[in-house]
Amino acid sequence: MLQESSVDSSGSRFAPLVVLELASDTKEEAIAWLLSRIRDRQQNGGAELLVEQLGPGIGLEEKENPNMFLVGASMQRLLCGAEDLGLFKECTDGSMRAFTFASKHNFKDFKGDGDGFLSMAECQYVIKHELDTLRAKEETNVPGYSHAKLYPGKSIIRRLLSKGILIQMFPLHENEELKRLSFSWYKKVKVSLQPLDDIRHYYGEGQALYFGFLEYFTFALMPMALIGVPYYLFDWEDYDKYVVFAVFNLIWCTVILELWKRRSASLAYYWGTLCRKKAFEEPRPGFHGVLGHNPVTGRAEPIYPTSKRHLRVYLVSLPFVLLCLYLSLYIMMIYFQMEGWALSIYDENPTFWTHILLFIPSIIYAVVIEAMNLIYRYAAEFLTEWENHRLESSYQNHLVLKVLVFNFFNCFASLFYIAFVMQDMELLRQSLATLLITSQILNQFMEAFLPYWLQRRRNKKMIRKIQKRRLYEEKELPLVEQVRLEADMSTYLGTFDDYLELFLLFGYVSLFSCVFPLAAVLVVLNNITEVYSDAFKMCRVFKRPFADPAANIGVWQLAFEAMSVIAVVTNCALIGMSPQVRSYFPESETQLILCTVAAEHVLLGFKFILTFLIQDVPKHIQDKLARLEFESLEALKKKKMLEASQLSKTVQ
Amino acid sequence: MLQESSVDSSGSRFAPLVVLELASDTKEEAIAWLLSRIRDRQQNGGAELLVEQLGPGIGLEEKENPNMFLVGASMQRLLCGAEDLGLFKECTDGSMRAFTFASKHNFKDFKGDGDGFLSMAECQYVIKHELDTLRAKEETNVPGYSHAKLYPGKSIIRRLLSKGILIQMFPLHENEELKRLSFSWYKKVKVSLQPLDDIRHYYGEGQALYFGFLEYFTFALMPMALIGVPYYLFDWEDYDKYVVFAVFNLIWCTVILELWKRRSASLAYYWGTLCRKKAFEEPRPGFHGVLGHNPVTGRAEPIYPTSKRHLRVYLVSLPFVLLCLYLSLYIMMIYFQMEGWALSIYDENPTFWTHILLFIPSIIYAVVIEAMNLIYRYAAEFLTEWENHRLESSYQNHLVLKVLVFNFFNCFASLFYIAFVMQDMELLRQSLATLLITSQILNQFMEAFLPYWLQRRRNKKMIRKIQKRRLYEEKELPLVEQVRLEADMSTYLGTFDDYLELFLLFGYVSLFSCVFPLAAVLVVLNNITEVYSDAFKMCRVFKRPFADPAANIGVWQLAFEAMSVIAVVTNCALIGMSPQVRSYFPESETQLILCTVAAEHVLLGFKFILTFLIQDVPKHIQDKLARLEFESLEALKKKKMLEASQLSKTVQ
Repeated sequence: MLQESSVDSSGSRFAPLVVLELASDTKEEAIAWLLSRIRDRQQNGGAELLVEQLGPGIGLEEKENPNMFLVGASMQRLLCGAEDLGLFKECTDGSMRAFTFASKHNFKDFKGDGDGFLSMAECQYVIKHELDTLRAKEETNVPGYSHAKLYPGKSIIRRLLSKGILIQMFPLHENEELKRLSFSWYKKVKVSLQPLDDIRHYYGEGQALYFGFLEYFTFALMPMALIGVPYYLFDWEDYDKYVVFAVFNLIWCTVILELWKRRSASLAYYWGTLCRKKAFEEPRPGFHGVLGHNPVTGRAEPIYPTSKRHLRVYLVSLPFVLLCLYLSLYIMMIYFQMEGWALSIYDENPTFWTHILLFIPSIIYAVVIEAMNLIYRYAAEFLTEWENHRLESSYQNHLVLKVLVFNFFNCFASLFYIAFVMQDMELLRQSLATLLITSQILNQFMEAFLPYWLQRRRNKKMIRKIQKRRLYEEKELPLVEQVRLEADMSTYLGTFDDYLELFLLFGYVSLFSCVFPLAAVLVVLNNITEVYSDAFKMCRVFKRPFADPAANIGVWQLAFEAMSVIAVVTNCALIGMSPQVRSYFPESETQLILCTVAAEHVLLGFKFILTFLIQDVPKHIQDKLARLEFESLEALKKKKMLEASQLSKTVQ
Repeated sequence: MLQESSVDSSGSRFAPLVVLELASDTKEEAIAWLLSRIRDRQQNGGAELLVEQLGPGIGLEEKENPNMFLVGASMQRLLCGAEDLGLFKECTDGSMRAFTFASKHNFKDFKGDGDGFLSMAECQYVIKHELDTLRAKEETNVPGYSHAKLYPGKSIIRRLLSKGILIQMFPLHENEELKRLSFSWYKKVKVSLQPLDDIRHYYGEGQALYFGFLEYFTFALMPMALIGVPYYLFDWEDYDKYVVFAVFNLIWCTVILELWKRRSASLAYYWGTLCRKKAFEEPRPGFHGVLGHNPVTGRAEPIYPTSKRHLRVYLVSLPFVLLCLYLSLYIMMIYFQMEGWALSIYDENPTFWTHILLFIPSIIYAVVIEAMNLIYRYAAEFLTEWENHRLESSYQNHLVLKVLVFNFFNCFASLFYIAFVMQDMELLRQSLATLLITSQILNQFMEAFLPYWLQRRRNKKMIRKIQKRRLYEEKELPLVEQVRLEADMSTYLGTFDDYLELFLLFGYVSLFSCVFPLAAVLVVLNNITEVYSDAFKMCRVFKRPFADPAANIGVWQLAFEAMSVIAVVTNCALIGMSPQVRSYFPESETQLILCTVAAEHVLLGFKFILTFLIQDVPKHIQDKLARLEFESLEALKKKKMLEASQLSKTVQ
């Protein structure tokens, strides 16, 4: 918990959980209105939360934003909020049940008033939910801002965000807890499992699932890495031995993805997110349309016809993506031409300068690829925003799909070209190694060290500023300074880029690792450093993100599965092209191709059967879920029988 | 409703709904015990139903079974049972909601006591459910039968069935209703849509979905049939024009299956089965094992380890199926050898007798195939029984899978061999036509006319017997005779064989119809007669089956989808082999094969994308379902808020 507690307007002290930062020029009447709505009782449509303005810091006052507000709540309010959200907690009998205030004493670890029963991340999530669902009543606009329109049922916070009146809303870090977590996470020298429960406790389920997946993926790669080392040591040049490796690859990538589903279901069950019902998603802040009525909730809400969105997706976005893919292919062809041209110059006149010229195309290509990825990412975000999706989840899915397809093309097109058009295994191996190693180094640098360095410079300036003014006996920063420090930290943009990186690494391993068996070893090494750098950036570089109660890794599961299907096709083709297999069909190439295709179809069929046979949720968890449902049905039946017998008594 | 009503033990008249037939030598004490348990009040663990022994008929008494019982219930009991089952009914506002007795007046068509609110099929389903869930209390065995063990919580009816004490339990037909239904269904000369709502009303959702699918499938085939006719009329011998037809085939079979899912969801929504929660399935009557406790319900129940079942499935059943497939292939090869041998004899010495010899192999092969299908079916049933599945649904799935794979092989292996090994398109066309036409004629005969003829003979004997004794003024049979007549009717074994037949027809059309464009026309004709014969046998040949509240066609959807994937592969291969396409690659066969394979992969990918893009449930029904869920969440929230405010009042 934070060292300092604030005093709310009614005089009782409260622990601040969430910070609201309004624009520094926000009008007084808007602030007063917002605070009164947040403090108002639930019966009157308020959020019934505690809120207080942050005092001035010790920094340069003229630069500080005075409109920072700390939000907290009483323990009773938080527990009721947790019930509204349908949070699942462990009961004393070991089962997971939706928390209800009435049956609070049946839950494990519930003592006294319930202090410590909800983790700080859960409390912050409750507050975020309460703020998000604070709705306008009769107001037609935000007081003082006639252009910030409101209508009954509109989420106030979302309107403030979309109009730029609310700059940000973020949860506070918990210094003591963070120290403990970072020690067990990345400061220990000893190699150990990820402290997933602690990560979940501090950052929520979405983050914990990412680290769980990263850990699982690393372990899953171990057998590949172990087999890869002797391949590297003994058969380096004998790469027609890779048939065994490719077959292993095929089975491996199907099985690990299926087993991950089971592991993910287990984790989600014990974290209580597996069977939690999702609340109805609000429209995203950027969503716009004619005001109408939501057919599900009946609330007033902007309406945008699905047919129009479909037109935008299929007539603009899809052609744009295809055009970009074509461009990417075109640039790849230019690269190969340049390379051929450099090689011919070198062959004609092998001097030092022409030798250097050999590297020029690769360097240009690498830079162009990075630049294209960057530009495309912006274009994809713009387009997906323009498609005007109602839900954040739908926006995310469309964005992920766009970025994924393009990144896949950009990263793997040249490898596919080398493997299947040029059929040069030696070059494939070289390119793969170069791509893997450079992308790894670049990523680690861009992802953790650069932001950390920038952050450190900023922090130092701040701390120096404070120390200039006065000296503290304890080294801890006072609350006011901590809040201002955190407000300046970069915002964590979610696990998108982390998963994308893993996805591409998975591609390198599953698609082509049979020609470069050391790929798995490199990816394992990368993952180990990735864990540390990711953990580090979560703890030190970014603002704390709100918890995200995920039950699985979502659309990424699908992406990885699609990759594993492509891997089956690729590996079969590589096997078919190997000299070893070719020697079985000395006279007829047709025969060879037909056999390869047949084998591929059998393997694909086998893969789909395997997907059916391996159950997504382990049996013991299925049983527990069924038991919960059975109990609720039985309770309902019993209640009805009781009511019927009471009814018959009153009739008599 | 039935013309005659019986008088129950307490003196009030009741409409009989279900018949229980006990063995004629059942001990008196067992009968008395069973009747008292059925009549006992629910608080005491009884079923609280009305039951009465059927009086002696007018037939030969020495042959009649005296132990026939009629079961009925009061309207209030039936409505409560419908609530227990969670039946969905239409409300006055047009939405579908789970019926509750307390809010009965909110439901459409609920008048007075509720007479006519539940269809007779629903009433019978309620009674079946109540009888099935009649559980043993302290009894350790059925009175008078020390070997018929019972334990607390064991379903009494299931034990009686598995020990042969209860011969059968079946719902009664409703003569008036049946006449109306059969008139609108198959007696009208005018071609019209299937009366799906009436079928559902009389036979339940499972039957109605089958007829819905049959109708949908017939309509879906219309475009194929319409395109097929000009192909037949103008290009009969020019079968290298089939590329266009094959491409059409590919798209068609993907799209119709996806659209069927939407149609099925719509039907199930309006019939109230789409969102009905399934009750916990009881173990099947034949399931055995050591007595233990069900981890879900906590009830005493036989336990059989899953690992043992897996061993049986993978070490015995799977090898057996593979062996049968091998045998089937082997017999097919013998057939082709015999055919070659017959042909060579005819070529050497073309006389009348050797010409007849040409037909001998086909006839032998056809007979052997039928015999193998029959024997295999028994073997599959035996094996699946022996695998000892706990649930009826799991038993059905395993049985369907076994029978499906073998039937697919038996029916299509020779066609595949002709198409891809012999590459004789002329022969393929001939075989396809022969197979389609003969199987059609055979099926119609075996399925409807044979059982009808047998039934008719039996009925006539009975009616003659009655008329010999006395003459009725009205032509209607008295209740007693009707019950005995129906008890003698054949039992309808479910939609398994009907779906299997459709599945094979779908195979003929989607796999090979491009070489025989008239296939779709034949299948459409077959389907039209199939509708009539199926309707006829449901109304006149079989005992009325219990309603089966299905929300979709279950495992068959999967089977049809698997077939459509195979169809993509087959059609691509046929296209690749066509002289038209071959002429594009005059010198290189390798090039041709690679292009075909690439096209196939693109089509398969496209197919899967299409599966994702077409939503399984139409948008307006998704909205309605979401609205129901939203309302229940809101109601819960409101209730909690009310409780909280009451609590705070009492504290004050």
